[in-house]
Amino acid sequence: MTRETQVSKTPSVAYSVTIRAEYANQPGMLGQVSSAIGAAGGDITAVDIASSDGRRIVRTLTLNASDQAHVRRITRAVRKVAGVRMLGVTDEVFRVHSGGKIEVRSKVDVRNRNDLSLVYTPGVGRVSMAVHDDPDSVWSSTIRGNSVAVVSDGTAVLGLGDIGPEAAMPVMEGKAMLFKQFAGIDAWPICLATKDPDRIVETVLNLAPTFGGVNLEDISAPRCFDIEERLREELPIPVMHDDQHGTAVVVLAGLLNALRVVGKRIEDIRAVVLGAGAGGSACARIMLAAGARNVVVLDRQGILTRRREYPDNPMKRWLAEQTNPDNLEGGLDEAITGADFFLGLSGPGLLSRNQVARMAADAVVFALSNPDPEVHPDEVGGLVRVMATGRSDFPNQVNNALCFPGVFRGALDVRASGINEEMKLAAAHAIAAIVSEKERCEEYVIPSIFNPAVAPAVARAASDAAIRTGVARAPGGRGGRGRAAPRR
Amino acid sequence: MTRETQVSKTPSVAYSVTIRAEYANQPGMLGQVSSAIGAAGGDITAVDIASSDGRRIVRTLTLNASDQAHVRRITRAVRKVAGVRMLGVTDEVFRVHSGGKIEVRSKVDVRNRNDLSLVYTPGVGRVSMAVHDDPDSVWSSTIRGNSVAVVSDGTAVLGLGDIGPEAAMPVMEGKAMLFKQFAGIDAWPICLATKDPDRIVETVLNLAPTFGGVNLEDISAPRCFDIEERLREELPIPVMHDDQHGTAVVVLAGLLNALRVVGKRIEDIRAVVLGAGAGGSACARIMLAAGARNVVVLDRQGILTRRREYPDNPMKRWLAEQTNPDNLEGGLDEAITGADFFLGLSGPGLLSRNQVARMAADAVVFALSNPDPEVHPDEVGGLVRVMATGRSDFPNQVNNALCFPGVFRGALDVRASGINEEMKLAAAHAIAAIVSEKERCEEYVIPSIFNPAVAPAVARAASDAAIRTGVARAPGGRGGRGRAAPRR
Repeated sequence: MTRETQVSKTPSVAYSVTIRAEYANQPGMLGQVSSAIGAAGGDITAVDIASSDGRRIVRTLTLNASDQAHVRRITRAVRKVAGVRMLGVTDEVFRVHSGGKIEVRSKVDVRNRNDLSLVYTPGVGRVSMAVHDDPDSVWSSTIRGNSVAVVSDGTAVLGLGDIGPEAAMPVMEGKAMLFKQFAGIDAWPICLATKDPDRIVETVLNLAPTFGGVNLEDISAPRCFDIEERLREELPIPVMHDDQHGTAVVVLAGLLNALRVVGKRIEDIRAVVLGAGAGGSACARIMLAAGARNVVVLDRQGILTRRREYPDNPMKRWLAEQTNPDNLEGGLDEAITGADFFLGLSGPGLLSRNQVARMAADAVVFALSNPDPEVHPDEVGGLVRVMATGRSDFPNQVNNALCFPGVFRGALDVRASGINEEMKLAAAHAIAAIVSEKERCEEYVIPSIFNPAVAPAVARAASDAAIRTGVARAPGGRGGRGRAAPRR
Repeated sequence: MTRETQVSKTPSVAYSVTIRAEYANQPGMLGQVSSAIGAAGGDITAVDIASSDGRRIVRTLTLNASDQAHVRRITRAVRKVAGVRMLGVTDEVFRVHSGGKIEVRSKVDVRNRNDLSLVYTPGVGRVSMAVHDDPDSVWSSTIRGNSVAVVSDGTAVLGLGDIGPEAAMPVMEGKAMLFKQFAGIDAWPICLATKDPDRIVETVLNLAPTFGGVNLEDISAPRCFDIEERLREELPIPVMHDDQHGTAVVVLAGLLNALRVVGKRIEDIRAVVLGAGAGGSACARIMLAAGARNVVVLDRQGILTRRREYPDNPMKRWLAEQTNPDNLEGGLDEAITGADFFLGLSGPGLLSRNQVARMAADAVVFALSNPDPEVHPDEVGGLVRVMATGRSDFPNQVNNALCFPGVFRGALDVRASGINEEMKLAAAHAIAAIVSEKERCEEYVIPSIFNPAVAPAVARAASDAAIRTGVARAPGGRGGRGRAAPRR
């Protein structure tokens, strides 16, 4: 199961460039340049003036293209406009990533020796001794109570595969940004120079005293299952592999609302999950935990059945035991007929319109391969009641950022010893509940990640569930710091 | 060798508290309260009004005490003032450390889906692939080029000893603050749940892809020597154990200036180093590298001689080979007679006035045990020409913060593969040169850490030395980002 990061066919901000062009300052020139860009398929998003001396003018034109070759075609078209001199092309994506996207800041100003004596020696010695004498005070006297390690080995980065720890850094930094933006959490990327599960586990155990939680990220299946399970067992702090549980929580939230829209109960549906990797496995598991009784999971070889063997993949073995109650055999064709819900965490174009047509009435399809879904929403108009994708340019975007900031916020707030099934289910219900009964409809089963109500609601649900299930070590404390609401 | 963090005998900001006291708003009351505090030995640093309703007034009085018992004596004295009600006492040190002292911030605003597509998916995928295709671009496209891990196992924290990784956190956060404040470097604490050198080395190797440099901190000797050496060998990025080399660089800087003041050459002096731990060993080594020919080092057993044996301590064995050319035997009494320079990195009060009196004329004494030096400056008035301590309340404070921010800044600026002897020597000369010939005198051989010229000068010296010695991988680049000067 891979989510191929193919080139989008339409211009997108992923290929946003700014062109600097100089020409004589006379009427009609901007129109000519804009027309040339438009004719070449470029999508202008901003126009500005960089400088002008009256006679000549330097314009910046920011535009979206569909890929690098398209950028080249557009700049060639601009160059061909008579009287225009191209001064340069800036890639906006690389510009915003330049030098990295996060930084460390002091929360305390140090202006003189007096300040320094408070925050550093000799004052800090007293704080260290206090932590030594009362280990619990580390949660209030250091960043630990608000910090999360975003740990990856770079083996399953986005849909790009095993590209290594350095290449994973831009993504993990982005994740850290989202932790801060949505939940006020101080997250730091840790990209590991090893793919060995034993070494990954040992390394994370060794650096754990620094952090209040561990977000595992983009670690390939099936290694991710074992790594997460061992860390969850050994560490007294929340550990969550987001590719599994972040996806699962948001999918369940969307599914719960979608089923309300179509008037079905999760207990009664037949769900087909295409993809038995990190995301697909976790989604199948959370659906079962939420009451689903008929889930069919497929990997590249077809339906997971009790007759097949799964060497080195206990997760598939477990899924094969717990799913497919009707003992279906075969592939997607066999599984899809009569299904109420299709969930794709596989690859682009793997579900056909014909297959969708064979689903039950009021079909729900979540095609999450990104950016190119298992089936394009435009292909299945009229066949599907509720459709969700991983994309931001269609309704109902399944985005993990709806889950992980709030769940970790809630866990840190009550100093939960872990993130358990109840906390995840509560988070899913909280996300679903952001969409009110009045708002809920085919095109709105999943809230926007920019809805400011999401993270606090998820945090509250997660911390309440942690208290209820006895894993909150500071149930009244909200981390001792009253941080239920995100700090922006 | 330990630097005991004993209670200072004089009131200090390390025991700064704010008292809230309520009393009738009538003349003379503040005077009575202030007098009571003064009589109890408290040192008032600020007085303010918290609230007043005309009849009653709530005052806050911030004051320095000498220890916790002293704070209690002072508050008892305030309570005894007729008509005064104590509302509370806030410990200023714990207040500024509350919730930790650093945070992660986004450098890019994410306000909408468009921004998100640039900094996160799908845009970030292009940046990750660019790093995958050209590994060098990690230095310009991620935080790696400006980030340093501050790694400790908590075994030798300040002078507090082996207090564990959690208790080390407040110190490592403080260090991260100083990295940012003085050199614009994004440093993150990594406190390790293991003391095993093999595991420490492996853990740091595993997390290295995240960082541009590694600052080892407060790791006990002799384990620190082996750990640093192995990491230096295996990692292509700067690794420096600050307790060794930060101290050594600043000591050498001070010594060079002190010798100019007293008119001696380093080649001609006899230096006595009390303490053969991390700091003492490194200081002895850098003095030798700087040209000193007669250095005598002492550990708890006395002078390091070639006749003694040093099981499990190759560093002491090496020092015994390279130092003590006159084959002195015995203890400090034997070593100190006729010495030009005493350097203490040991414990409080270990050097007596009588011993100082037996030093050569124009003696230089650096008594760096902190906060209580090997010999108190007040005890040796008239016997010593130049005196330095680790304290901020005497002239010539030896403070590692003069070295580590600039050295790492310089190393990162040219993407040095390591921090070599030449870079450290250059840094020492740069620190010394901050004090101009005209300014240089007995009481001013070491610049203030708040002198803004220090870090840029050290950075320039270190990066120039890195270029000269061929360890700069981006000699023209200054890290590709023009960061010779610190960002505040």
